Amino acid sequence: MPRPRHERFDCSPGCPVEATLALIGGKWKGLVLWHLLQDTLRFNEIRRRLPNVTQRMLTNQLRELESDGFVIRTVYTQVPPKVEYSLSTRGRSLEPVILALKEWGEAHVVQAAAGERQSRETPSLSGATAAAGNERPPGSVPKAAGHAPTG
Amino acid sequence: MPRPRHERFDCSPGCPVEATLALIGGKWKGLVLWHLLQDTLRFNEIRRRLPNVTQRMLTNQLRELESDGFVIRTVYTQVPPKVEYSLSTRGRSLEPVILALKEWGEAHVVQAAAGERQSRETPSLSGATAAAGNERPPGSVPKAAGHAPTG
Repeated sequence: MPRPRHERFDCSPGCPVEATLALIGGKWKGLVLWHLLQDTLRFNEIRRRLPNVTQRMLTNQLRELESDGFVIRTVYTQVPPKVEYSLSTRGRSLEPVILALKEWGEAHVVQAAAGERQSRETPSLSGATAAAGNERPPGSVPKAAGHAPTG
Repeated sequence: MPRPRHERFDCSPGCPVEATLALIGGKWKGLVLWHLLQDTLRFNEIRRRLPNVTQRMLTNQLRELESDGFVIRTVYTQVPPKVEYSLSTRGRSLEPVILALKEWGEAHVVQAAAGERQSRETPSLSGATAAAGNERPPGSVPKAAGHAPTG
């Protein structure tokens, strides 16, 4: 089910970065892993925490997370049947990765978006928008258009 | 150019995880960021480090990384023209994220793949294959097929 992006992951230094992204970069996977780090959850509990996800999409993502060994799907034989999703040991080992993603997103995306909203709502105050460092060495010309790969 | 996955990133706790993945999860972006963390590079230097990437794909990914404020493209007005790619301050702020992805990938993907290769090559030795934790609570039945979202 998971679509490998690269045939081999020992291709070059840095490849482990892509290898990890290939496993957790699927739509909503990071968010599902984040919520399962907090708690064991039933399907509808996960769905309520992800208001924009469709049932089909969430089912697919959980299936891939399970086949990659991150998520354990437990079926309790009772009436009505109960199905729970939890993290495996391998899934739990992703905690530092998920936390790093979360910390960066909080500092650079969520706060920047909040700053932009605030500056739109109170335009007299100077807005704290996201500042992309724009250092350029002397003698160089910033060029916005035309990305011909000269080099 | 970047396709937003979610309209708002303050939707729920954990959303910053997805927000970050949406920015760096593009194919090859993690690997490009990793190499630019090491050095300022020209287009062909990046391409040589990513043997499986096409010129078109790399151009697209660099364009998105530039428009998201991670990468600075510097054109030197000389003959022949020289174009260099480097990380902005914002791009450099991703270092802990890229390192977390790399460390997990090294420990869990690259080493597991090496273990599998070794066990194929020397089948008499017991292979150190990737172990996905399979703990299940008592009274539960593991169910491989049929992912109806009961719950």
